[in-house]
Amino acid sequence: MGDIFARLPELGDGLAELYKDLHTHPELSFAEHRTAGVVAGRLRALGLEVTEGVGRTGVVGLLRNGDGPTVLLRADFDALPVEERTGLPYASTARGTDPDGNDVPVMHACGHDVHVTCLIGALDLLAGDRESWSGTVMAVFQPAEELGSGAQAMVDDRLFERFGTPDVVLGQHVAPAPAGWVGIHAGPAFAGSDGLRVTLYGKGGHGSRPETTIDPVVMAAATIMRLQTIVSREVAGGETAVVTVGSVHAGTKENIIPDEAELKLNIRSYTEPVRAKVLGAVERIVKAEAAAAGALKDPVIESLHGFPALVNDVTATARVESVLKATFGEDKVIDPGAVTGSEDVGVFATAAGVPLAYWLLGGIDPETYLKALQAGTVEQDIPANHSPLFAPVIEPTLGTGVKALVAVAFEWLSPHR
Amino acid sequence: MGDIFARLPELGDGLAELYKDLHTHPELSFAEHRTAGVVAGRLRALGLEVTEGVGRTGVVGLLRNGDGPTVLLRADFDALPVEERTGLPYASTARGTDPDGNDVPVMHACGHDVHVTCLIGALDLLAGDRESWSGTVMAVFQPAEELGSGAQAMVDDRLFERFGTPDVVLGQHVAPAPAGWVGIHAGPAFAGSDGLRVTLYGKGGHGSRPETTIDPVVMAAATIMRLQTIVSREVAGGETAVVTVGSVHAGTKENIIPDEAELKLNIRSYTEPVRAKVLGAVERIVKAEAAAAGALKDPVIESLHGFPALVNDVTATARVESVLKATFGEDKVIDPGAVTGSEDVGVFATAAGVPLAYWLLGGIDPETYLKALQAGTVEQDIPANHSPLFAPVIEPTLGTGVKALVAVAFEWLSPHR
Amino acid sequence: MGDIFARLPELGDGLAELYKDLHTHPELSFAEHRTAGVVAGRLRALGLEVTEGVGRTGVVGLLRNGDGPTVLLRADFDALPVEERTGLPYASTARGTDPDGNDVPVMHACGHDVHVTCLIGALDLLAGDRESWSGTVMAVFQPAEELGSGAQAMVDDRLFERFGTPDVVLGQHVAPAPAGWVGIHAGPAFAGSDGLRVTLYGKGGHGSRPETTIDPVVMAAATIMRLQTIVSREVAGGETAVVTVGSVHAGTKENIIPDEAELKLNIRSYTEPVRAKVLGAVERIVKAEAAAAGALKDPVIESLHGFPALVNDVTATARVESVLKATFGEDKVIDPGAVTGSEDVGVFATAAGVPLAYWLLGGIDPETYLKALQAGTVEQDIPANHSPLFAPVIEPTLGTGVKALVAVAFEWLSPHR
Amino acid sequence: MGDIFARLPELGDGLAELYKDLHTHPELSFAEHRTAGVVAGRLRALGLEVTEGVGRTGVVGLLRNGDGPTVLLRADFDALPVEERTGLPYASTARGTDPDGNDVPVMHACGHDVHVTCLIGALDLLAGDRESWSGTVMAVFQPAEELGSGAQAMVDDRLFERFGTPDVVLGQHVAPAPAGWVGIHAGPAFAGSDGLRVTLYGKGGHGSRPETTIDPVVMAAATIMRLQTIVSREVAGGETAVVTVGSVHAGTKENIIPDEAELKLNIRSYTEPVRAKVLGAVERIVKAEAAAAGALKDPVIESLHGFPALVNDVTATARVESVLKATFGEDKVIDPGAVTGSEDVGVFATAAGVPLAYWLLGGIDPETYLKALQAGTVEQDIPANHSPLFAPVIEPTLGTGVKALVAVAFEWLSPHR
Repeated sequence: MGDIFARLPELGDGLAELYKDLHTHPELSFAEHRTAGVVAGRLRALGLEVTEGVGRTGVVGLLRNGDGPTVLLRADFDALPVEERTGLPYASTARGTDPDGNDVPVMHACGHDVHVTCLIGALDLLAGDRESWSGTVMAVFQPAEELGSGAQAMVDDRLFERFGTPDVVLGQHVAPAPAGWVGIHAGPAFAGSDGLRVTLYGKGGHGSRPETTIDPVVMAAATIMRLQTIVSREVAGGETAVVTVGSVHAGTKENIIPDEAELKLNIRSYTEPVRAKVLGAVERIVKAEAAAAGALKDPVIESLHGFPALVNDVTATARVESVLKATFGEDKVIDPGAVTGSEDVGVFATAAGVPLAYWLLGGIDPETYLKALQAGTVEQDIPANHSPLFAPVIEPTLGTGVKALVAVAFEWLSPHR
Repeated sequence: MGDIFARLPELGDGLAELYKDLHTHPELSFAEHRTAGVVAGRLRALGLEVTEGVGRTGVVGLLRNGDGPTVLLRADFDALPVEERTGLPYASTARGTDPDGNDVPVMHACGHDVHVTCLIGALDLLAGDRESWSGTVMAVFQPAEELGSGAQAMVDDRLFERFGTPDVVLGQHVAPAPAGWVGIHAGPAFAGSDGLRVTLYGKGGHGSRPETTIDPVVMAAATIMRLQTIVSREVAGGETAVVTVGSVHAGTKENIIPDEAELKLNIRSYTEPVRAKVLGAVERIVKAEAAAAGALKDPVIESLHGFPALVNDVTATARVESVLKATFGEDKVIDPGAVTGSEDVGVFATAAGVPLAYWLLGGIDPETYLKALQAGTVEQDIPANHSPLFAPVIEPTLGTGVKALVAVAFEWLSPHR
Repeated sequence: MGDIFARLPELGDGLAELYKDLHTHPELSFAEHRTAGVVAGRLRALGLEVTEGVGRTGVVGLLRNGDGPTVLLRADFDALPVEERTGLPYASTARGTDPDGNDVPVMHACGHDVHVTCLIGALDLLAGDRESWSGTVMAVFQPAEELGSGAQAMVDDRLFERFGTPDVVLGQHVAPAPAGWVGIHAGPAFAGSDGLRVTLYGKGGHGSRPETTIDPVVMAAATIMRLQTIVSREVAGGETAVVTVGSVHAGTKENIIPDEAELKLNIRSYTEPVRAKVLGAVERIVKAEAAAAGALKDPVIESLHGFPALVNDVTATARVESVLKATFGEDKVIDPGAVTGSEDVGVFATAAGVPLAYWLLGGIDPETYLKALQAGTVEQDIPANHSPLFAPVIEPTLGTGVKALVAVAFEWLSPHR
Repeated sequence: MGDIFARLPELGDGLAELYKDLHTHPELSFAEHRTAGVVAGRLRALGLEVTEGVGRTGVVGLLRNGDGPTVLLRADFDALPVEERTGLPYASTARGTDPDGNDVPVMHACGHDVHVTCLIGALDLLAGDRESWSGTVMAVFQPAEELGSGAQAMVDDRLFERFGTPDVVLGQHVAPAPAGWVGIHAGPAFAGSDGLRVTLYGKGGHGSRPETTIDPVVMAAATIMRLQTIVSREVAGGETAVVTVGSVHAGTKENIIPDEAELKLNIRSYTEPVRAKVLGAVERIVKAEAAAAGALKDPVIESLHGFPALVNDVTATARVESVLKATFGEDKVIDPGAVTGSEDVGVFATAAGVPLAYWLLGGIDPETYLKALQAGTVEQDIPANHSPLFAPVIEPTLGTGVKALVAVAFEWLSPHR
C-alpha cells in the first residue's frame, strides 16, 4: 500500500488550492451549485462516472475497477450561515439566502470543505493506481448535512437503486483535535439530533401599553429559562442530552410589542427513551409557559429535522481502527468516546442495511493544541466547529485525511489483505 | 365660525380618498418620500408657501393671512414596521427597509395618516375663508415621530430661524376612543420615552457543545425576565413606569449557538427621578446578567432615542378645552389623564419657548366602542395604536379632526374672539 | 381647645415610659394578651367603662360625657414576626408563635405601640377636661391588624350592637415622615390587600436524582419570576398594583428534594377591576407554572386575608384636614396621595355605615429626614414600617399624635365649634 | 461456606424485629444515641469488643479470630429529616432537632436501618462459626453519613490508631432495585458531593413598598433559575454533574419583605475539573444575581460538606463481583454504572490507604419492580432513597444483605479460598 501514497506529496499543492477555493466559496444547504460543479469537474477529470443532482444538489461518482466489494466513501459539502472571522487570506465573504428568505453570511464553519478536498485527493490516488486494488468506489458528495436532511434526500432519490448497494459506508469529519491524529469510537458515536421551530403567539400592541397585549418577548424568555430545567432536572446524571435554543426572534422596534416570537431548538440524545422524554418535556413546557402568559392560541411546534444517533458497527470499526493504527501509529489514534455532535451519514448505512464506520480527523495545529491542553484552555483557545473562528490548518490535515480514506478503503478493496 | 365649516361636507369624499391613499402607501421614518410629495402637492394647490426636505423629509407650509399670531399646526407622517391584518380594502401591503437594513412590512398602525388628512382638510377650510381670520398658519408635517427624533431633526434644520417662531404649538393624535370624542389633559400628558439597544456578547459555537460557549440566548432570556422586576419591585405603586422589550434577536440556525443577542427596550416615565432610577436599573441588571453568564465582554447599551414627558401648558390647554367643548359639546370632551404613550411634539414648543396644547382624537366606531365598554372588553376587542388590527373609522374621525384643528386655530387667529 | 393641651407636657414622661414598655413587649396578632391587660388597666384608671376580649383580644373603652355625638377612636395593637435590629435600649427580644406554629422573634415594626400610646394620652386629656366637650368617645384597641382580620373580628363580635354605633370613625398611623407632620388624603387612601398562601406540589426524592422527582424548589422559583410580570406587563401604567411574595419555604436539607413549596403573597390594589385582574393572573400563572414542571397535582391557593381599599370620606376628611392645619400649621399638613400600605380600619366605618377619616403621623426625627431628603437618600436611609430598623423618635411623635387625636375628636365633640 | 449460612433462617425473625425497631426509631446525624445503644448491646451479646462514642456517636466492634487479615465492614446508621408516608405498621413518627434548631420529623428514608441490621446479622453468623475463618472483623457503625462528615469524624477520632488498620474496606447500600439482586461497579461508582449554604442579603420592608427594599425572595428565585444553566449549558453532554437546590427559606409573613434568603445546594460530580467548574459557576452566578438585584452586601457561601467521588478499587471489586456471582448467580449481579448518589465510605479506605469495594443491595419487591420496569414506570412507581415513601421489603432484602457481607468477608478471611 506504500506505493499508492507515493504520489501524495505531488497532489499537495493542488489539494491546498482546491481547499482554499472551496473555503472562499461556501454555499448553504441545498444551494451547493458551484461546489457541485467543481466536484463533478474534478471527478470527470479523474475518469469517474459522474451523476449530478442526486437528492437535489448531491453528486455521485463511480470508480469501477473490476470485481470486488463496493465501498461508499462519503463527503458532505454544505456550509453554514456564519460570518467568518478567521482573518485568513482565503476567508469567506460569501452570502446566501437562508430558509426564511433572509440574506445571511456564509462560511465553511463546519469544515465540510476539508471533507470534499480529502475525498477528491483519495479518489485521485485510487484512480491513479488501479493495479493495487479491485472493486468499486462509490464517492458520495452529500448536500445539506447541516439540515440533517441531505442523506435522506439522496436515499429518497433512489441512490442505491440507481448506483448499487455498497458493502460498507465510510467517511470522516474534521474536528478540533491535533492535525495528524484520528479518532474512532464503536457503538453510539454521534448523538441523535432533533431540530424544532417553536412559534409563540402573543398579542401585539404599543410598547407603552403592555396591559393591552400578551407579550411574546416575555413569553419567549420565560420559556427559554424553563427549557434549561429539562437537562438540569429531568435527565439523569448518567444520561446525556443537550437542549439548545440556537435562535430567538421577535419584534422589530423597541416600542412595538410584537404578535409572535420564534425559537429554534436543537436537541441531542443517544437513546430513544431520553429523546422521547426531552421532546415531551419541551412540548409540556412550551405549552404551559404560553398558558402562564395567558396566550389566546397554543404555540406551534414544527420539526425542522430529526435523525437518530450515529452508531458505528462494532466489527467494521475494529477493522478501521486497526488500519488507522497501522497507518499513523498507535499513539495517533484515539477513542474520543461518544460526542454530542450529530451526523446524518448513518442514514446511508441504515438504508443500505450495511455496516458504518465513521471517524474523526484532527484539524488543529498540533503545537497550538498541545499548548492549550497543557494550559487547560482548550475550550477557550481552540475554536470548534460552527465557530466563526474555526480554521483547520491545511497540513497535515489534508494529507492525513487523504491517507485515512485510501488506507481504510484498501481494507475492503485490496486483494493483498 | 359656523361659516367656515359650511364647506366641510363637500371636502368629505376627497378627504376619505386622500386618507385611503395615504393608508395604502405607508412609509417608514425618514423614508416618507411619496407622502411628502403628496402633502406638498396638496399644499401648493391650496396656495401655501411650501418647503420640502426640512429635517430630511419634513414639509413646511405657510398660509399667510395678514397680521396676527402664528399658529403651528403639526401632523406627523411616518408609519411603522407592522404587517397590516385589518383586512380593509385599502389595507397596506407595502414594505420598507428598517434601520438595520431588513426588508419589513409597513403599516400606518399609529394613525399618522389620520393626522395628515385632518391637517390638509383644516388648511383647505382656512385657505378658503380668509375673511374670518388673520395671522399665519405654519403647517408642519413631521417625519420620524416613531423614532422620537423627527421633531428634533426639523428644529436642528433651523425650522424657526427659516420660517418664524410661532405663538403656540397645536396638534392632535388619533386614539382608541369613540370617534366624535376628543380628550385633553393639562400638565404631563404623555410619558417621556427612552429607546435603548442592548447588545449582549456571548461566545458562539456548536449547538451540541454549549460547554464551549457562553450562550447569549440564555443570557438574553435571563435579562428579559430580570428586567420585569424594575417595574414590579423598584418603582413605587404610586409612580408610573413601563419597561418593554419590544425586540429580541439572536442566532440563525437551531444548532449554532450565536455570538451575540440584541434587545431593544422602550422605557416610559413621567418624572426625571423615576426615569433615572429605571435607566440605572436597566444598566445594573444588563451588566449583572452578563456577569452571571460569565460573559467575556460587557454588554453595550446605546440610546436609540430619548425625549422627556409631553407637558401641556395649563393656560393654553384651558383655552383649547373650552373651544373643544363649545365645538363638540361638553359630553364629548374628556380628560383622559396622563397616558403612557409618548410624543415628540413637545420638542417644537420647548425649542420655540412657547406653549403647547396637544389633544387626543377618538377613532373607533362609537357603537362598537360603547358595546365593548359595557362588556368590559375594551382591551381585548378594540385594537390600539401599533396593533396590526388598528383601524380608525373614516367618519366621524376625519370630520372631527378637521373641525378640532380649525376651531382651536381660530381661538388664536380669529379677531372675533 | 388650648386648655385641654395644657396638661400634655406633664403626661410626657409617662407616655414615653408606656411607649417603651409596649415596644419592649410586642405580641403577635390575636396574642396581644399582655398588651390588652396594660391597656385595660390604663383605661380603668382613667375612669372608662372597659370591656376586654372583644374580637378575641380587643379592648373597648367608653368615655361617656353627656349628650352629643359618638366618636370612635381606633388604635391597633399587634406586632410583627420581625427580629428587631434597632439597637435601642428598649429594643424587643420577645418571641412568639406564628400561625404555622413556629417560634419567631417579635417586634413592633409597624409602630402600633405609637398608636396605643397616643390614644391613651388622648383619652387621658379628654377624661381630664370633661368641661370642654360632650358626647361619647368609643376607644377601640384592635387586635390583628397585621392579619387584616382584627377589625372584622371585633365587628363580628357585635361591637356596634354592644357598644353603640359611632358617628364617625377616626384614627392614625405612624409613618416614615418627619415627626411633627401629619398627612391626610381624601378618597382611596390606602390600598386594598389580599393575602394568599400558595402550596406547590412536586415530588420529593434524593438530591442526586432529580430525574426521579418533580422539583418544587425550581417550580417555586419559576413561579416567583413569572409573578413579576403581572405588575410589569398586565397592569396599566396609570393603575396601581403591588404583588409581593413575602415568604417562600421549601425543603430541609441540601440533598433532599422536598415534596412541596409554600409561597405567601400579598397583593395591593385600589380598584376592584385591577384587584380581580391581578388575582386572576396569580391563579393562571401559579397553575401554568406547575403544569410546566409536570406537577401531578394542582397547586392550592388559599386566602389568608382580603379587604378592600381604605376610602376616606371626602367631607369628614376636609374637616379633619382643616383641624390639623389649625392645630399644627399649614406647612405641617401634607397630602401624601394614595399609599400602597393597607389598613383594615375601614371595616369599622363600612360596618357602621358612617364616614371614615384616617391620617398619617410622622415618626422620624425631622433633621435626619430632611437631610436624607436633600441627599435624595430617603429610601435607603430612613427605615420604613416593617423594617427591623424601624424606630420612631419618641418626641415630637407622641405629642403630635395625642394632639391630633384630641383636636380631631373635638371637631365632633366640642360644642364651641 | 455453605455451613455458615445454615443458621441464617433461624436469624430471620430476629433480624426482621431488629429492623422494624430501628425503622420506628430513626435518629438524625450525630444524634444516633438510642441506635448506638441498640447496636452496642447486640455486639456485646455476640462477644465482640465494643467501643462507643467513636467520632461522637459511632460504634466499633472487633471480632478477633486468630491470625489473618482484618476486614472492615461498615454500616452507617443515621436517618433523615423526612416525614414518613409509607403507611407501614412500623412507620416512624419520630421527631428530631435539625442543625438549625428546628423540630423536624425523622425517617430512615435512606435505608441505613437495612445496613445496620444486615451487618449485625452477618456478625452473628461469623461469630457463630469461628471454625471456618480466621482474622479480624472490624465492624464500623458510622454516624452522620447524611452530613458527609461521619466517616471523617471517626477517622479524626483516631479510628485506625486505636483499632488497627484493615486490609480492605467493605460495605453495601440498599437501593431501589429488585431485592435479591446486588450491583457493583469498578472505578468511580458514587459521585463526589458538595453541600453549600448560600445566604442572600436583601433589604427588608413593608410588602406594599417594594421600592424601598431589595427583595431577597426575587433574588433567590432568579438565582435558582440561573443555577439551572450550569448543568444545561456549562457541563459537557459527556460529563456528569447535578446541581440541586434542596432548600430555600425566606420570610415569615406575606406582607413583610424579609432581609435575607437562604438556599442550600447539593452538587454531584465525578471528576475534579467538573467539580471545580461547577463550584466556580455557582459562586459566579450567586454573586452576579445579587448584583443584578442591587444587593448592598455580597452573598455568603459556606461549605456544609464536601467529599470526593467514591472509587471502587478495580482488583478488590473484581474479587467481590466474582464472590457475589458465585453466591447469588450470574443473573442476580449487575453493573449499575456510576450512580449520582454519594457516600463517604471512601474516606475510610483513603485514610487507611487500602482498597475499597462497596456494592448496592436491591430492596424492592422483585415482582413490583419488574412490573414497573415492563410498564416503563420505574421512576414514577418505585420510591427511591430519600423519598417519604421509600420502603424496602424485609425479605429477601435482609437475607441477601447478610449473605453478601459474609460471603465477601470470607473472600479475605477464609483459609479455604
